[in-house]
Amino acid sequence: MDAATPADLIVTHCTALLHADPDESDPQRAADGIHFRPDTALVVRDGVLVDVVDSAAVADLECRERIDARGLVALPGLVNCHTHSPMVALRGLVEDLPEQEWFNDWIWPIESNLTPRVVALGARLACAEMIRGGVTCFADHYFAMDTVADAVAETGLRANLGEAFFSSQGPEGRERSLDFALRRDKSAGGRITTSLAPHAPYTVTDDDLAITAELARENGLLVHLHAAENRAQTDISLDRHGRTPIGVLQDAGLLDVDVLIAHGTGILDRDLPALSAATGRVGVASAPRGYLKFGWDTTPVRALVDAGVHVGLATDGAASNNTLDVWEAMTLTALVQKQTERDPRWLTARQALRHATLDSARAVGLGAHVGSLAPGR
Amino acid sequence: MDAATPADLIVTHCTALLHADPDESDPQRAADGIHFRPDTALVVRDGVLVDVVDSAAVADLECRERIDARGLVALPGLVNCHTHSPMVALRGLVEDLPEQEWFNDWIWPIESNLTPRVVALGARLACAEMIRGGVTCFADHYFAMDTVADAVAETGLRANLGEAFFSSQGPEGRERSLDFALRRDKSAGGRITTSLAPHAPYTVTDDDLAITAELARENGLLVHLHAAENRAQTDISLDRHGRTPIGVLQDAGLLDVDVLIAHGTGILDRDLPALSAATGRVGVASAPRGYLKFGWDTTPVRALVDAGVHVGLATDGAASNNTLDVWEAMTLTALVQKQTERDPRWLTARQALRHATLDSARAVGLGAHVGSLAPGR
Repeated sequence: MDAATPADLIVTHCTALLHADPDESDPQRAADGIHFRPDTALVVRDGVLVDVVDSAAVADLECRERIDARGLVALPGLVNCHTHSPMVALRGLVEDLPEQEWFNDWIWPIESNLTPRVVALGARLACAEMIRGGVTCFADHYFAMDTVADAVAETGLRANLGEAFFSSQGPEGRERSLDFALRRDKSAGGRITTSLAPHAPYTVTDDDLAITAELARENGLLVHLHAAENRAQTDISLDRHGRTPIGVLQDAGLLDVDVLIAHGTGILDRDLPALSAATGRVGVASAPRGYLKFGWDTTPVRALVDAGVHVGLATDGAASNNTLDVWEAMTLTALVQKQTERDPRWLTARQALRHATLDSARAVGLGAHVGSLAPGR
Repeated sequence: MDAATPADLIVTHCTALLHADPDESDPQRAADGIHFRPDTALVVRDGVLVDVVDSAAVADLECRERIDARGLVALPGLVNCHTHSPMVALRGLVEDLPEQEWFNDWIWPIESNLTPRVVALGARLACAEMIRGGVTCFADHYFAMDTVADAVAETGLRANLGEAFFSSQGPEGRERSLDFALRRDKSAGGRITTSLAPHAPYTVTDDDLAITAELARENGLLVHLHAAENRAQTDISLDRHGRTPIGVLQDAGLLDVDVLIAHGTGILDRDLPALSAATGRVGVASAPRGYLKFGWDTTPVRALVDAGVHVGLATDGAASNNTLDVWEAMTLTALVQKQTERDPRWLTARQALRHATLDSARAVGLGAHVGSLAPGR
């Protein structure tokens, strides 16, 4: 602890949510990955947490601002690891329809007519909604992403942003995605990172996916895409190509770079060896509310965790999920997982907190920087 | 419209949620059972809604209080048709455990030591929480119900209350339940109605259930009990007695009186003919959050509705459900039903509103008095 100069901020007497050390011996604690440390002090210098200690240890430490947080819990910011922020403009527009009809007859015709002005307003509104809900970092996969990047820069949030593309746009779509990723990476004082954002294996060709993997490797970028969104997609992929969507990603080399897969409710047991053997970091973003809304299966969280995949929590866009509330994603993940696994001990409240913080941060490639209350973050 | 004396209250320019007439011709509207009527006025005299008309029709009508509700929706009060209100004192006490362990090792040992003072505080807190959440009527099944009745009288809510009993208490338990029901029925200016409240077929003997049915018939009382709470209960009942819990109720004559069955997630297809053939009014209270929490199936709402059963929405006690929020019960009912039935068109937002209002009111025997915005209610 550097006591020579005053700290910028000291929070005392809080109960701090801490992530278990890997060598934690209590098996229950290790399984949940979270514990709560009472009467704790957090010391901040230059915008970085430098110490997590007993409140008594900082009693005499000089600081510019001191907050007595008795009775309060200190949490790391939540990470929403897959959304389409401008879609808040479409919230509540159409309900109670099957996903194909919902998308093809309503959402897509409107989306393809959105103006940059609506995208900008939507992104700002989404940022406000996420800030209110305790989200400090999100991953976004949409169009007109310069507009979203501007909103992130303005609001002070952290985000990983990807400009979506389809192969139907020709090479220009892919090139715009790369151009955006290279131009805005590490911008907004480092708060913005970027990804390459092919839409999905069913809208992007195998060749384009393979080129994307190459570009990701060359430029050290994350790839963020939808894959195996539901069981029907997986079945169609098997019928048409004899491969699951995860098999398509593997063949394209996308499991050898860092990849963030949205949804994955159609991931099968046969996909698990490929995910386990991935040489890149694999994250899966699970947004359980929309899956219920469309009557889908949910993400196989337990199998993915066992396979070494980082499962992060997400809200998807507000058109399908209705809110950008990661607390709700935690609640629904815990409840739906319990019912799906027929096991009330899985997934626990503490596991849900871990998925929405450190696991989500890892899924978006920021696990070394955010997602837990630890010195240096 | 009686224009001779001023009305007590007129609400104008609201959008009113109205329940479809039975002869409504639009099939979608009939299925949902709900529609919204714009620019509507509600006229109240002597605490009763006497008119639902166009706002223009009341422009010149005299009244003591007039509310311009432009931009607002007028809803009937929500009905929480199965809870144990004092259990708010146990909220969050223990999580992430199987139901047997949760109940036997934690909840029951604490419940059996609850003091009347804690029950009274719990009931008052629960009433406050329900009022804040838009609930104006609830059905409660617990102990020390005079205490709960006092809270209801004080808070102005409407409630159907039953003093729970087990056969292990001897005839005194059953007699206390009857005594309470007769003493407090139609009290608090008619806001309190009562029921006989055997705990469940696995804690109350067939003889006691049959006597309860007789007492209900003689005294014109509702019977409110847990039955077929989950699939395991049904399986155990079949193993031990060769009958499902619903079969047990039928044999005891409980389907020939008005009965409110809590949960019913273990109701099987083979139970449906008995429920359809019931000569009494059968209601089932569905509290979906707790079912997720324990990893149970959910209530077979679609089959029950098709069988003519009134399915009401509920929160159960706050120990298993965590909140007394009927809005949350609506959300989870819609979402879980969509996934369970693999049909995003079922159950719709409007159906959820119907279940939480008129269907819940019918399930607790108050369908003629509350649950919809209609003259005389």
